[in-house]
Amino acid sequence: MSTIEISMRNRALIARRERLLGPGNPLFYDNPVHLVRGEGVWLYDADGRRYLDCYNNVPHVGHCHPHVVEAITRQASTLNTHTRYLDETILDYAERLIGTFDDPLSTAVFACTGSEANEIALRMAHVATGASGLIVTNHAYHGNTTAVSQLSTIMPPVEGLGRHVRTIPPPDSYRPLRGLKGEKLASAYAYEVARAIDSLEADGLKLSAILVCPFFANEGFPDVPPDFMTQAIEHVRNAGGLYIADEVQPGFGRTGNHMWGYMAHGVVPDICTMGKPMGNGHPLSGVVARQDLVAEFREQVKYFNTFGGNAVSCAAGMAVLDVIEEEGLMENARVVGDYVKQRLRGLQEKHDLIGDVRGRGLFFGAELVLDRVTKEPAGEETKRIVNAMREKGVLLSRIGPHDSILKMRPPMPFSQDNADQLLSTLDDVLSDAP
Amino acid sequence: MSTIEISMRNRALIARRERLLGPGNPLFYDNPVHLVRGEGVWLYDADGRRYLDCYNNVPHVGHCHPHVVEAITRQASTLNTHTRYLDETILDYAERLIGTFDDPLSTAVFACTGSEANEIALRMAHVATGASGLIVTNHAYHGNTTAVSQLSTIMPPVEGLGRHVRTIPPPDSYRPLRGLKGEKLASAYAYEVARAIDSLEADGLKLSAILVCPFFANEGFPDVPPDFMTQAIEHVRNAGGLYIADEVQPGFGRTGNHMWGYMAHGVVPDICTMGKPMGNGHPLSGVVARQDLVAEFREQVKYFNTFGGNAVSCAAGMAVLDVIEEEGLMENARVVGDYVKQRLRGLQEKHDLIGDVRGRGLFFGAELVLDRVTKEPAGEETKRIVNAMREKGVLLSRIGPHDSILKMRPPMPFSQDNADQLLSTLDDVLSDAP
Repeated sequence: MSTIEISMRNRALIARRERLLGPGNPLFYDNPVHLVRGEGVWLYDADGRRYLDCYNNVPHVGHCHPHVVEAITRQASTLNTHTRYLDETILDYAERLIGTFDDPLSTAVFACTGSEANEIALRMAHVATGASGLIVTNHAYHGNTTAVSQLSTIMPPVEGLGRHVRTIPPPDSYRPLRGLKGEKLASAYAYEVARAIDSLEADGLKLSAILVCPFFANEGFPDVPPDFMTQAIEHVRNAGGLYIADEVQPGFGRTGNHMWGYMAHGVVPDICTMGKPMGNGHPLSGVVARQDLVAEFREQVKYFNTFGGNAVSCAAGMAVLDVIEEEGLMENARVVGDYVKQRLRGLQEKHDLIGDVRGRGLFFGAELVLDRVTKEPAGEETKRIVNAMREKGVLLSRIGPHDSILKMRPPMPFSQDNADQLLSTLDDVLSDAP
Repeated sequence: MSTIEISMRNRALIARRERLLGPGNPLFYDNPVHLVRGEGVWLYDADGRRYLDCYNNVPHVGHCHPHVVEAITRQASTLNTHTRYLDETILDYAERLIGTFDDPLSTAVFACTGSEANEIALRMAHVATGASGLIVTNHAYHGNTTAVSQLSTIMPPVEGLGRHVRTIPPPDSYRPLRGLKGEKLASAYAYEVARAIDSLEADGLKLSAILVCPFFANEGFPDVPPDFMTQAIEHVRNAGGLYIADEVQPGFGRTGNHMWGYMAHGVVPDICTMGKPMGNGHPLSGVVARQDLVAEFREQVKYFNTFGGNAVSCAAGMAVLDVIEEEGLMENARVVGDYVKQRLRGLQEKHDLIGDVRGRGLFFGAELVLDRVTKEPAGEETKRIVNAMREKGVLLSRIGPHDSILKMRPPMPFSQDNADQLLSTLDDVLSDAP
């Protein structure tokens, strides 16, 4: 067993935290990190120790990026009101953001959190279709409100999953259902979608929408073929339903080849939702959808969000788009992401624990197994490695149905040098006997 | 009829806004204002024209207050991560915020919007009581999510009010139900609460909570006696329900005598929610509740909010508390609020249209009537005055069941001079023939 010690000072902080914020408020790592500063891909703790951040996607263009800080400061000291006055900041930002999507995704609604964005998308679909049935993937997570948490099997609400919800198995390129691989992964997924539609109809419910992360991030980001969604979305549209892409994780160029995750699959959604990286940590989220859907939603729902789309949020969002473009961060994600995967495959040859290497751009990982033939998930071992990496100054996490996938999703300026440090540390930790 | 002209430039902006954000996105005033700068109680439009802001409560300590901007800038350039790392900013802020409440309100949960805060409160009550029945007041508004919008009769969701919801008439000091005034307003309200509990029970539903703005802001901020809530909350607690105070509007000292609206009534809630003014425009909201309720919620719901309680939000929140204290804003609200009401009563003697003058601290208004005996609401006239005030450089709005109450709720540094400008402009506008 490892002998990780929590410092006296951190024990005191944890006790104070429990008193003020309540017990059971989750912390990362057996030995939690007390952070005091961030810069680019680096985080610093209260003892001045430096950590390579291989986990946080919220500081998308890097922790405390000066261009984003400057934009927030400038706008916060100029004007920050709500959207019931005319304001050009929101229009300039909306125009630029919409420009990164395909037709007919042409109209924006702004909010503050990914949960709020998914709330809007669900209500938009409900208004447009008059139907309530929803299809989501097992092991997905779309947010924390009453309505949205009814869709999650990994953090199911105390109230239980809604009876209007059908969950289907995610594609799994490593342990494929009925051994179906490659192109057949898509047919198997489409089949599950069709079955879910039938199941809703058997209960007298019509389909409103499928809500899916097009990268299947929380489901373990399986390798799926191009055009993966085509057949599934055909079933959805034939049933009168809409395709909502939750771009909170793959969006803003993270996967390297595309600005938005859906673009990997050749089907344009009806509604896209986005959040976390949008304001580099400033609470900003949004929905970009077909104009007719937004118009109907605005008319029926009379949605207003006090902070949503305020001038400071839009200035932060605009600055994030500036940096992605000026620093070539999407291209960086592609190049460094390819390099990391290639080097992870090298580690795989050396360490039997690595069963599979997956991901795209700067969202990548390794699935750990106790046995490469049986593919028995190595959940406990994965936990040990995540904690050992933290002790060695590299922050990452784990995910997947068995919590056996090392999840790495660093700020976008992550360089080849950073990748080398991550990989040599991982090599060390994998070489240590447990 | 008035002959208000919208400039060519603003017409172009409105058309661009419809294209990018969809049609039907609400704007204030027949002639919308295109704002470009704010400072203290002042807003400036694109033509350099200055407006006295008598409406916005979000910029609580004044538009673009330098102390808040400095705090946001400092923290945004230092560190901004989520709450799964140890961080002292959130603890210092939580401690200071909790210190402004009465026992046993001792534990905080942070989120980004008032809607999210009310979502948390409702789920907290549900987990604690195991019951789903909710009591709210007619004409209240508590937020825009699916679950929270089910509680509003002024913006009812397309899905309809929930069958677990009972709405009761708000107290009305100007047109009292059955002529009950003063102390009897409280008995009448308590009676309605008791009836709502009976009605839920008749449907086999147990009471989870009453959710109420203790200032009844959207209901028209009636004058209610001290101890107004005592009997009503006795009924709620006897039925096993909780008292949730929505402090989004009266909180942070706005009403002058108290930091929180509930304090006017001598009953301590089980849960308080807060939002708009909390970060002076930075998206920050929160819940302060009994420790046992937060603990049960954390255990059952596993709530996590990516941006909620991040370091920049907490720095903004702390700066707002600094300014309220250092600039004596609660005392200012009391003194200037008393002065305004006294001067409004003076105007009432001169203008028959003013049927009633109400409010507390810097949340005040005048109810306009066509006839002081019949008290017929002057909704159209109120609309004309709101628009005429805007043309004369004073921003305010209207509210209430008949949209016949002038609603004034300025930034907290609102001075006696500002009040004089507001009142002399209002005198002019009231003197103009329609």
